[in-house]
Amino acid sequence: MIRISYLTLLAITIFSFVSYGQLTVNQQRMEKRITELSQFGKDTNGRGYRVAYTKGDIEGRTYFIGLMRNAGLEVSVDNAGNIIGKRKGKDPLLKPIAFGSHIDMVPDGGNYDGCLGSIAALELIEILNENKITTKHPLELIIFSNEEGGTDGSAAMAGNFSLEALKLKTQSGLTIGEGIKAIGGNPENIKVAARNKGDLAAFVELHIEQGGLLEKEKLQIGVVEGIVGIEHWEVTVEGFANHAGTTPMSMRSDALLAAAKFIIAVNEEITKVEGRQVGTVGKIAAMPGAFNVIPGKVNLGLEIRDLNYNKIWQLFKAIELRSKDIETASGTHFTFNYQNNASKPALTDKSIQDKIVIATKSLGLSYQYMQSGAGHDAQEIATITPVGMIFVPSVGGISHSPKEFTKGIDMANGANVLLKTILALDLE
Amino acid sequence: MIRISYLTLLAITIFSFVSYGQLTVNQQRMEKRITELSQFGKDTNGRGYRVAYTKGDIEGRTYFIGLMRNAGLEVSVDNAGNIIGKRKGKDPLLKPIAFGSHIDMVPDGGNYDGCLGSIAALELIEILNENKITTKHPLELIIFSNEEGGTDGSAAMAGNFSLEALKLKTQSGLTIGEGIKAIGGNPENIKVAARNKGDLAAFVELHIEQGGLLEKEKLQIGVVEGIVGIEHWEVTVEGFANHAGTTPMSMRSDALLAAAKFIIAVNEEITKVEGRQVGTVGKIAAMPGAFNVIPGKVNLGLEIRDLNYNKIWQLFKAIELRSKDIETASGTHFTFNYQNNASKPALTDKSIQDKIVIATKSLGLSYQYMQSGAGHDAQEIATITPVGMIFVPSVGGISHSPKEFTKGIDMANGANVLLKTILALDLE
Repeated sequence: MIRISYLTLLAITIFSFVSYGQLTVNQQRMEKRITELSQFGKDTNGRGYRVAYTKGDIEGRTYFIGLMRNAGLEVSVDNAGNIIGKRKGKDPLLKPIAFGSHIDMVPDGGNYDGCLGSIAALELIEILNENKITTKHPLELIIFSNEEGGTDGSAAMAGNFSLEALKLKTQSGLTIGEGIKAIGGNPENIKVAARNKGDLAAFVELHIEQGGLLEKEKLQIGVVEGIVGIEHWEVTVEGFANHAGTTPMSMRSDALLAAAKFIIAVNEEITKVEGRQVGTVGKIAAMPGAFNVIPGKVNLGLEIRDLNYNKIWQLFKAIELRSKDIETASGTHFTFNYQNNASKPALTDKSIQDKIVIATKSLGLSYQYMQSGAGHDAQEIATITPVGMIFVPSVGGISHSPKEFTKGIDMANGANVLLKTILALDLE
Repeated sequence: MIRISYLTLLAITIFSFVSYGQLTVNQQRMEKRITELSQFGKDTNGRGYRVAYTKGDIEGRTYFIGLMRNAGLEVSVDNAGNIIGKRKGKDPLLKPIAFGSHIDMVPDGGNYDGCLGSIAALELIEILNENKITTKHPLELIIFSNEEGGTDGSAAMAGNFSLEALKLKTQSGLTIGEGIKAIGGNPENIKVAARNKGDLAAFVELHIEQGGLLEKEKLQIGVVEGIVGIEHWEVTVEGFANHAGTTPMSMRSDALLAAAKFIIAVNEEITKVEGRQVGTVGKIAAMPGAFNVIPGKVNLGLEIRDLNYNKIWQLFKAIELRSKDIETASGTHFTFNYQNNASKPALTDKSIQDKIVIATKSLGLSYQYMQSGAGHDAQEIATITPVGMIFVPSVGGISHSPKEFTKGIDMANGANVLLKTILALDLE
């Protein structure tokens, strides 16, 4: 009850004092730009490989910077390679309100992940321009560098980037350091890209859901409550490689059979408790790996995600316990190598959530609160500023695939919610 | 009862008319030759890579041909690259009695697999020479080419070699055709290497067990009843690759989870019926294979071995049926791609088995009847001549590994049984 009345009050405040109610984004322009951006980084089969730091990424960035400049933004590239487009506000003393996403993609990926949020953020600027609106706060449209490779640009902006990572090889073939240089950054001095806590008033990101929940529930908008934490373990199962013909079934220490039991145990432990946690064994290798040799060693990749960080570790402990039983029964040995590349859960700001809900309702759109199972730049930025995230449906829940698709009307809905949320934030 | 009296009769026949009872092989010479042969094809770490057709294989063959010539054998290399050493008998009208094995090895393999049988066969010749014994039958010591790559030399001799296989790439980097040429064969005319049914009187092979049954039972000799048949299937599990963060557990078609259930089902089906059958999933690949993507496709290698060919297919049908249940429960699809590189079960000759048993008993050695879980050259030769196989213990049951080891005394025991078996065959 308290929440509703607060929301009602807020809605009255916003819509009494502003005349922005009728502003709507240009869906056709957004769709045209999605198509234009998708041309950069295509391979000869027409599949998207706009991986961060590659030729396609650099060309896509150049295209996007052109659009930003045409929209009157003052564009710069920070030392981490993030593209920042500034628009002055009426009150230069106010902190900037930021929004944006990324335009790099996974290999053989889709045209909506990151791109929608980037193009919608630019659309917001276009609409303000067309309606000759100047916000009180300065605005910043941010295109983060190398999101898919590990939210590197946003981590640098949040001061969470480890210098050692500069030496890591990326899928582009360059190291992160070389890649940042290639896109106009200054990796030697990447720390300069970091903003302080409170430097920004807020950050809001629109993104495709990358899952199938909104579509399944026939809902138009997802109000993201938080972005899940992610932990990774490399799991090694050691048995004893032996001749598959001469070793009786009863005398085997088959590492792959033990690994199979483990994969099932992971699924059981993850699904037997209530909640939205997910656990995945996504990679596997069996050595030596021949028809006629009992596998002596298996490597697995284990991932657990949840919005509650303690729950991730509780689930891991339960899984680890199961591996002890498997060890005993199969004469194998399990080792868990924690990857320490954790991404901690990030909660979005309650008051920004409220503004997103009000904007959604004012547009007559349906919505639900939900978590983001995927990592996003907003997750990093949440460590220095209040963030909000808006989801729109992904057809078939498909993402990181050429089949990734979001309907034009859903893109426009999301962009309209973003526009109204930013305008609501500007009232504060 | 009938069997025992027949055996007794045979034993009396053999040992009344021959004075070979006291002949024994030279264990030290055999051990020395095992060590000498092991030097060819060693890598810089001292590990054995005498893979067929490589420099090490060619050098090992040259060394062995030298020993054979020194032992007075008339050595030739047939069109399939098999080394054949002939020793005249008293009666040129009798068919030759053949024995031998192979000296090529798997990568990073051991020094006993094939080598023991080859060196023991040569030792037999040495002992006959030293004792100035000429057998009635001509003798043939045969070192088969490329056993580990698929019993190619013995298949060619048995007329079972398919010409298409000449184009197959081997682990040496050469095709089989190029490899046969490199070791002095004539692949264009490989058919000439084929012997007709009945061209040989018998073939006997001594081999390490490559399993742990003799050691476990503390027995000295294995009398091989047959060599199991082997069938291979490439199994494909198709699910749906999706984002591991955004796809709830209930909305997944996880190909690796289904594959894990399949691996366990294979183990259950193979072990739930009586018998010595074995079934192995020895290789696996999951696509795309990343921590954060639900596997959309998994490839597995399934192998089933048994002495009874029908049983192999009964087991496969049971496994295939289990995959249907897994399909239904997991929303995945299984495809079985039969590899059609079957090696059919091969039974050894009953009368040669009897001679091996008598020889074993006369030496005061313990024994058991057993099957060979591994494929051997004798398996191919069984299609054109009666064969026998003698096993000696492998320490720890280990084979195809640098840890492969058979004690000197066990090698000598096996060679003595081989010698006495060949002499018994010569009486017929």
